[in-house]
Amino acid sequence: MNQAHLDDLFAFIRFPSVSTLPERKGDVAACAEWVAGKLRDVGLQSTVHPTAGHPVVIARNQHAPGRRTVMIYGHYDVQPVDPLNEWTSPPFEPVVRDGVLYARGSTDNKGQILAHILGVGETLKEKGELPVNLIFLVEGEEEIGSKHLEAFLTAHREELRCDLIAISDTGMVARQTPTFTYGLRGITAMEVRVHGPATDLHSGIFGGAVMNPATALARLVATLHDADGRVAVPGFYDDVVPMEQWERDAWKKLPYGDAETIANTGVPALFGEAGYTSVERMWARPTAEVNGIGGGFQGAGSKTVIPREAFVKLTFRLVPNQRPSDILAKVRAHLEKHCPPGVRLEIIDGHSGEPYATDPHSSFGQAAQRALAAAFPGKSPALIREGGSIPIVNTFKRILGVETLLLGLALPDCRAHAPDENFPLENFEAGIRLNRALLDELARTK
Amino acid sequence: MNQAHLDDLFAFIRFPSVSTLPERKGDVAACAEWVAGKLRDVGLQSTVHPTAGHPVVIARNQHAPGRRTVMIYGHYDVQPVDPLNEWTSPPFEPVVRDGVLYARGSTDNKGQILAHILGVGETLKEKGELPVNLIFLVEGEEEIGSKHLEAFLTAHREELRCDLIAISDTGMVARQTPTFTYGLRGITAMEVRVHGPATDLHSGIFGGAVMNPATALARLVATLHDADGRVAVPGFYDDVVPMEQWERDAWKKLPYGDAETIANTGVPALFGEAGYTSVERMWARPTAEVNGIGGGFQGAGSKTVIPREAFVKLTFRLVPNQRPSDILAKVRAHLEKHCPPGVRLEIIDGHSGEPYATDPHSSFGQAAQRALAAAFPGKSPALIREGGSIPIVNTFKRILGVETLLLGLALPDCRAHAPDENFPLENFEAGIRLNRALLDELARTK
Repeated sequence: MNQAHLDDLFAFIRFPSVSTLPERKGDVAACAEWVAGKLRDVGLQSTVHPTAGHPVVIARNQHAPGRRTVMIYGHYDVQPVDPLNEWTSPPFEPVVRDGVLYARGSTDNKGQILAHILGVGETLKEKGELPVNLIFLVEGEEEIGSKHLEAFLTAHREELRCDLIAISDTGMVARQTPTFTYGLRGITAMEVRVHGPATDLHSGIFGGAVMNPATALARLVATLHDADGRVAVPGFYDDVVPMEQWERDAWKKLPYGDAETIANTGVPALFGEAGYTSVERMWARPTAEVNGIGGGFQGAGSKTVIPREAFVKLTFRLVPNQRPSDILAKVRAHLEKHCPPGVRLEIIDGHSGEPYATDPHSSFGQAAQRALAAAFPGKSPALIREGGSIPIVNTFKRILGVETLLLGLALPDCRAHAPDENFPLENFEAGIRLNRALLDELARTK
Repeated sequence: MNQAHLDDLFAFIRFPSVSTLPERKGDVAACAEWVAGKLRDVGLQSTVHPTAGHPVVIARNQHAPGRRTVMIYGHYDVQPVDPLNEWTSPPFEPVVRDGVLYARGSTDNKGQILAHILGVGETLKEKGELPVNLIFLVEGEEEIGSKHLEAFLTAHREELRCDLIAISDTGMVARQTPTFTYGLRGITAMEVRVHGPATDLHSGIFGGAVMNPATALARLVATLHDADGRVAVPGFYDDVVPMEQWERDAWKKLPYGDAETIANTGVPALFGEAGYTSVERMWARPTAEVNGIGGGFQGAGSKTVIPREAFVKLTFRLVPNQRPSDILAKVRAHLEKHCPPGVRLEIIDGHSGEPYATDPHSSFGQAAQRALAAAFPGKSPALIREGGSIPIVNTFKRILGVETLLLGLALPDCRAHAPDENFPLENFEAGIRLNRALLDELARTK
């Protein structure tokens, strides 16, 4: 491992650039400056652009006519770290154990975007130039729905014009299995609040005479699925495109299935929509998930209250051709219909991103697969979809009019968004090779 | 208002004696010392007895043969104060607004037990002696289920021997309506934890393939009631003694009903078991309530995780002749039967107290009603049951073999356990009169 590269990665990770926490705004800004500085170090022009939220970092080489223009996208912001006490080592103090780096942001996305930056640095150092016109776009709001990126892309549409985009922010199906992702689930978020009494009530004095908001909330959440794990919101599946048979066949042969999902999650048993394998459930079927639920007394011991309110944070993962606004409307109508008497329902729509699909057999798709093979010598790439959401892929298509190649380096047990997030250093090195091969392959592709 | 009495009450309330919070242990102990000192000040012998938990304060006058022995019970511990931001003034800084004292513990139970202590002080000052042999027992764990009181009573059974017990820790049906409570609901508590993945999971990567513990928990909570508000745990109502017709008739005439319940709770509408009035639901019917629910991301914004676990804190209010152990067993069997696949259920039994009923027409019951009439001149006492639980009433009966008179001074809008807990000073003064009349009446009763 190149020690200078590792030092760069450690420095990058030490910024606690948690975009959702207002108190981290200064750390997020400092991290953006660091990224811009690193892009300059490797030989690119770079600029930090303020937005109404966190800054966007843009970098480019000297563009020449007649060459293909490639944008590489990544993000320098990270998820919150709680529950903090479940981390083996502190989340913003990177530590390598057995060749694996542990830290918040190691996989998602600092390790991956930095590999691209350092790959460009190596090419420039060796050859003095790149085979393509390159643009780096590294944003600071991916983990909060890329709130201000659309306005930024619209405002800078001309200078960001490109032929295609590459992103390393998706997963590999297994170690040493290079993976091309041709589909992503979309997402739409909603917070539901149930309001009851004006204040918390003594559950002995008033219990029995009023609807308990936490009970009402639980009853609402229970209406979201049937007993077989299927989402029970009317019309939820109306626009879902069924899987193609070649996908189902190919996925059954992947070195990733039920056993790996159990090992990577630690669940006592798998559970999901009847009629689908766990891989199909994660990649090609929509979901309704509780991300957080709360109400009433949260401390140790007991407090005998009827809480005045309770909340649930929901997200729905979407597949082609579900539309976030349509799903939000259907869920809202369903919840309003099922809200028990005696409480008031408040529904707050959150961020959204459309599902995405591209053709893995296009010429760019094939170039990407060759680059992946070069990054992991002797291995042939797997073709998959992925369960996560990268909403900006659709934004890029809409505003810049181009497709995105998803060449992820995250392992299934990388614990993105969770305690002990990690990234193997071999993937960091493969990412550097991937960048170099990818720019070569894309320069050559007709 | 006697200024010295008010100063005493303020001093008592300023101790943040929250028994459930380990960090308040020192404050609870200091409060016990203050109570013991006050009991000495008024002319009694008093002792602070350490227990395995918080101390018990015992005080007594010089006992003489041939006199009736009366124990007055109260507690100096209080409930937690959260949500702190919903208090108009800080919970441990007593403030009087329009003749009403606002503070945690003002009603429950510091104001009420102090009125008895000061009543004894007035009698001793005027007459030099009391008409009865008196024992004060003031404990510090009532709000956490009186965990160590039973062992204490057993160990001190001889010195605590008495003919009956009086407690002011229940409610009045309305202002200036003295109230004798002849029944209490029991309680039994349970915490349910649903465990799923080993860590929080990315809800995009894994969503759909695993049971979400918060969803599973909500589905479990939703099985506790039917749509009509009746508890749906099999056998839950098996041992419930139906209400007597005289009670239903008397309660319909009380100056307290649906309108007052709506006004005191601020709910948009009442809701409860079909076939009963709201007063009947609160006083004579059992319940299943969520006191707290939690899991996953609790902060502002969103975090797209599948939580590794979720919990709910449940309490069940019980009526004669339901038994806590029987109800816990039935609920446990019900939850185990309904637990969805893919998660592991953990059930932790909490504290319990049996329901209580005494005969309001006994000679002691009638003496109590005369004392209440003396405390509120010109008013005749209402006969009610109450929804709250005072588990130690049953413990007293079992260990000391005596009945308890419940002569409460809490108003329906006192906000016990909630923000802006309050106690009218007129009730504090009535409590002092009540103590003096009660000891006289009990001394006289055959």
